[in-house]
Amino acid sequence: MLPTAFERYRDEIDATLRSALAGHTSPLYDMLRYHLGWMDEHGNPCAEPGGKALRPTLCLLACDAASGSHSQALPAAAAVELAHNFSLIHDDIQDDDRERRHRPTVWSVWGKAQAINAGTAMRVLASLTALGLVGQGVPVVKQLRALRLLDESCLRLIEGQYLDISFERRLDVGVADYMAMIDLKTAYLIACSLELGAMLGSDDGRLVGAFQECGRRLGLAFQIRDDYLGIWGDGAATGKPVGADIRRRKKTLPVVYALDQARGQAAAELARIYGQEQVEDADVATVLDILAGLRAESWVQGMAEEYGDKALAALEDLTLTDWARQSLNEVAAFLIRREC
Amino acid sequence: MLPTAFERYRDEIDATLRSALAGHTSPLYDMLRYHLGWMDEHGNPCAEPGGKALRPTLCLLACDAASGSHSQALPAAAAVELAHNFSLIHDDIQDDDRERRHRPTVWSVWGKAQAINAGTAMRVLASLTALGLVGQGVPVVKQLRALRLLDESCLRLIEGQYLDISFERRLDVGVADYMAMIDLKTAYLIACSLELGAMLGSDDGRLVGAFQECGRRLGLAFQIRDDYLGIWGDGAATGKPVGADIRRRKKTLPVVYALDQARGQAAAELARIYGQEQVEDADVATVLDILAGLRAESWVQGMAEEYGDKALAALEDLTLTDWARQSLNEVAAFLIRREC
Repeated sequence: MLPTAFERYRDEIDATLRSALAGHTSPLYDMLRYHLGWMDEHGNPCAEPGGKALRPTLCLLACDAASGSHSQALPAAAAVELAHNFSLIHDDIQDDDRERRHRPTVWSVWGKAQAINAGTAMRVLASLTALGLVGQGVPVVKQLRALRLLDESCLRLIEGQYLDISFERRLDVGVADYMAMIDLKTAYLIACSLELGAMLGSDDGRLVGAFQECGRRLGLAFQIRDDYLGIWGDGAATGKPVGADIRRRKKTLPVVYALDQARGQAAAELARIYGQEQVEDADVATVLDILAGLRAESWVQGMAEEYGDKALAALEDLTLTDWARQSLNEVAAFLIRREC
Repeated sequence: MLPTAFERYRDEIDATLRSALAGHTSPLYDMLRYHLGWMDEHGNPCAEPGGKALRPTLCLLACDAASGSHSQALPAAAAVELAHNFSLIHDDIQDDDRERRHRPTVWSVWGKAQAINAGTAMRVLASLTALGLVGQGVPVVKQLRALRLLDESCLRLIEGQYLDISFERRLDVGVADYMAMIDLKTAYLIACSLELGAMLGSDDGRLVGAFQECGRRLGLAFQIRDDYLGIWGDGAATGKPVGADIRRRKKTLPVVYALDQARGQAAAELARIYGQEQVEDADVATVLDILAGLRAESWVQGMAEEYGDKALAALEDLTLTDWARQSLNEVAAFLIRREC
């Protein structure tokens, strides 16, 4: 079950996101509304479950925890969510994924050429939305700092995406390579969410730094659990086809672990399967067997928990209200145990 | 021959662009350096002729013409050039173009998935580069205005690109539709270049507005000449294969004009050719014959000249130095007569 923080901020996040898209009448933006679950593919309003809005929730929670007023941080929170969604639209093109959240992906409805436009437009809208901070009474210096942080985090994300794709054709990806990749691909933007919230809520550099560090580690924990769900999750819950990561030769943590740990026959099988252009159903089953033999499931889950604990440890020395600390604990616990 | 304004600013633009990329060590950025002509595909330095740097040149020229100091506007000029190059990288993916400036396009070297990353990274770098205005002593309010203008112009560009692609499958694109599309796809970013320069050089709102308007019309003239060169240009000079626009059923101005003007047999031929999935060499020859019969070449060139004149007319009431006015005249004359 989602922690209460998600419920607490949901309506304000949704309203801010909708106003970020308001007034944009080109049919280009219908692709964005579709992706966000507000419209069906024919342009009719609908209310599909969107994402969890994890990043904006973390942003607002950090702002409140830093004794700020979360309403001031709403443009930043919405900007981070839009930046995240830009990456999902492009990711689906790059990975050839036809389905997300139980619906056809943007490219599978409008084609890849137009989906590229949708993703980039979403990315530009993120910056324009962040520019709304000035109107919220945020000092101009913090406004500029927020814009820079958002852009730099997006560059890290794209660098991570670059590595992730380049890993597909490699067999020599170790756990350290993997951690460096997900740090870029996932952790920086989650860290950015918390850092933005904390920075808008407080002028205490030590506190802001602690939230940034907490976010980095939480981001790693989040991605590791994501990789876990990509192999052992329930496709009906995650909305992603089971085995897809293996079929696409993605170097997710379970596989990286197996490539590192397997010996003899298992190692030879993995080298064969991951050296092919095409991965078959029988190969997926073989990989799952090898992962079971190596007890990869509990090792991977242990890693997620380790980083979840480390994330909370980053906040240990801060003076926070009981409410803030409990909310952050709940979110961290949720991220490493979630089923979708 | 290039007007002297291009020579005047070239080195400073180049240095600012290079410093925008400096310090970015991920191999992701090698794709950007390759696209900009600084590196070959193996990562070795080279000095391929890049683009004309039209947009940054216009930005700096407007700043000087507005009695500003162009060096203050360098981050804005470089930002616009990066934003333009983001659109070229994505454009080549969307159009399946394998060659640009006599070299393989980014996607044809690194694949489409990675080229998407290269384009989006270029777009984010544009914003980060524009954030450098603060360091140039530009007042914070203007800094924020510049960032917003750049983002809004990029959205217009993407909206135009969306329309351009959607026109490929339509036969009912009229001259007005075409003009609205190139206004978005091309004119706004060129207008943004001049507006940024003028705004950084002057606080006179009327002057800034006049440069903006001049840029919109210059952008239309530029794109019309571009369409002209796409059909009647010399492939060796433009670096684009002749006939490519026809083969891809692009609704460039000559074709839009022909679809509107052709009657009888010619109209039927065009409807057949543009209604097919695949356009053959013989079809390209037929389209060229129909264009000749309709005297499309002189009509299209007349349109470019009309908008070139209108662009200069937008500046008529301003008090400008002789140097500034002459430089702007030279650039406008060049844009509508250029061969590449």
